[in-house]
Amino acid sequence: MEKELFQFSQKQVQVLFDATFNLVNELSGGKKLIFITDQNLFNLHEEKFKGYQTIIIPAGEANKNQATVNQVINELIAIGADRKSFIVGVGGGVVTDLAGFVASIFMRGISFGFVPTSILAMVDAAVGGKNGIDVGGFKNMVGVIRHPEFLLYDYQFLKTLPEEEWRSGFAEIIKHACIKDRGLFTFLQNKKLSDFQNEHKLIADLVKQNVLIKYKVVSEDENENGERQLLNFGHTIGHAIEHECTLMHGYAISIGMVAATEISEKIDGINDNRIVLVKELLKKYGLPTTSNFDREKAWNIMLADKKKSGGYLNFIVLDEIGKASVKQLALPKLHTYLTELSLS
Amino acid sequence: MEKELFQFSQKQVQVLFDATFNLVNELSGGKKLIFITDQNLFNLHEEKFKGYQTIIIPAGEANKNQATVNQVINELIAIGADRKSFIVGVGGGVVTDLAGFVASIFMRGISFGFVPTSILAMVDAAVGGKNGIDVGGFKNMVGVIRHPEFLLYDYQFLKTLPEEEWRSGFAEIIKHACIKDRGLFTFLQNKKLSDFQNEHKLIADLVKQNVLIKYKVVSEDENENGERQLLNFGHTIGHAIEHECTLMHGYAISIGMVAATEISEKIDGINDNRIVLVKELLKKYGLPTTSNFDREKAWNIMLADKKKSGGYLNFIVLDEIGKASVKQLALPKLHTYLTELSLS
Repeated sequence: MEKELFQFSQKQVQVLFDATFNLVNELSGGKKLIFITDQNLFNLHEEKFKGYQTIIIPAGEANKNQATVNQVINELIAIGADRKSFIVGVGGGVVTDLAGFVASIFMRGISFGFVPTSILAMVDAAVGGKNGIDVGGFKNMVGVIRHPEFLLYDYQFLKTLPEEEWRSGFAEIIKHACIKDRGLFTFLQNKKLSDFQNEHKLIADLVKQNVLIKYKVVSEDENENGERQLLNFGHTIGHAIEHECTLMHGYAISIGMVAATEISEKIDGINDNRIVLVKELLKKYGLPTTSNFDREKAWNIMLADKKKSGGYLNFIVLDEIGKASVKQLALPKLHTYLTELSLS
Repeated sequence: MEKELFQFSQKQVQVLFDATFNLVNELSGGKKLIFITDQNLFNLHEEKFKGYQTIIIPAGEANKNQATVNQVINELIAIGADRKSFIVGVGGGVVTDLAGFVASIFMRGISFGFVPTSILAMVDAAVGGKNGIDVGGFKNMVGVIRHPEFLLYDYQFLKTLPEEEWRSGFAEIIKHACIKDRGLFTFLQNKKLSDFQNEHKLIADLVKQNVLIKYKVVSEDENENGERQLLNFGHTIGHAIEHECTLMHGYAISIGMVAATEISEKIDGINDNRIVLVKELLKKYGLPTTSNFDREKAWNIMLADKKKSGGYLNFIVLDEIGKASVKQLALPKLHTYLTELSLS
């Protein structure tokens, strides 16, 4: 087990890599534990929740919504949760996003921690304090920024992670490589997914490396005025596709990164091999790189994007492998880029 | 117009006393204004909202709930609100509580300001950063603490304030006098409600004095670990009565203060004239001091009170006129006090 302390303006977050689940008791400092998890994870790991108050939500992004928040809050009231209660979200990004949001608004905020169980939640969703829910299909339209007390990484959970969830999570790992770390990009080129699935140390190191990349970006720009925006690479078009095609998050982001890279080449006018390298790496990890999504439907969703303000949208362009930047694009320009995308 | 700057850990709040409504434009710093108000106030002051995006919610505490939050968020999405939008809640405590909450969670938080239009919102609800909604009748069960950019006091709105709203607001003013300011208590004894209704300077000074009392308490204990709890005087039993009898907030708090004062005398064993003085002052301002509410129903509501934790509840006792303190009461003890209340 390796312990780190993440320092944010409002809070210190204890981070335990390669730890075991039963440490949650100790981490919650004697407060009354209440687990929030989803039906899939509960079915797979029921024994872990024995003897604890556990609120089970329906699985899947379609349930990251107000109806599920209402369900959880009603259950919290019913079991007599109070300000000495401690919520622990155990699951993928849907669970951590929703549990963090509920803990932040219940009785104006109670303590919480996360045990992320999917690659995506481990390297992305659970790190950085963003939480929230979707509204009518618009991603993360409602939420707050509030950090958990702890993050606990127990890689035992990965043994039951479905193959498509592994792939989906690697989209965010490849994103980190694209925007921040050419060395990681090369490393991933020289490995394949099954290497990480089969070797504990390999996945443990990769997860930790990616958590630290995200932590560094977030801690330098908690309110997303600059650097943190880079993490949105592939997410503007990706979210619109996710909404329209009900793809898994990582799959949609994979296509979104291809689209954003294509647009990056249009913007800077340099046709190097960025797009080829990005597509090849995504394909290597079983991720999709083409899509015939409806451009106009996607556009309407993008107009409600949080990154839009006034007549502009902050779009993340890939300058080269390992380096990205924010470009303020006028909406008509972005619309043209969107309709001209080849994505083939 | 008098300007003050309130300093909280997270934010400076501009406070404009005795100002005019049309200053909101200037205060929102060029951002896109979106008003949130209720149907009653909109009907009375429609001309003030001409030319602005205005979201109208149904009036009354019964609508301070998730359904109304959903309505507002859907309207915000429909009108294309974004992070450059600026929400201004114009109304009583229901409007400011709900508007502040929506602004705090929409797109993970956008800017907002308040124009409180009732006495209660002016001296209490709009001050201190607490916002939120009720859940299934449990008061303020969901919310966050987040301060507005500004508070604007335009006493013109009081001209259309119903008589019972005046009374209700004075309950919180009398509360401030009870817990913090014997001089204010005496001053109120020597005046009557109509004095304040008829003389601009008198109500303007009283509102300002009460805002400053609340600001001082809140700024010294933003997270309610000590001093700020005193503001809950009368609210534990008051909230339970409000829930059960659907009384106006101030009316319920009035009865709650009588109950809390009666319990205070039991706890310290001193039968002075506290209870008489408190009751007389409340009556003078048209507030109720008796109730035959169902004790067991009220008890069940109190068990879900945010001030409860573990087997105890932090109860505010009135030590003397102008001075209060927090007592940690074991739940069975409090239950006994509740059932023994005379409230006659």
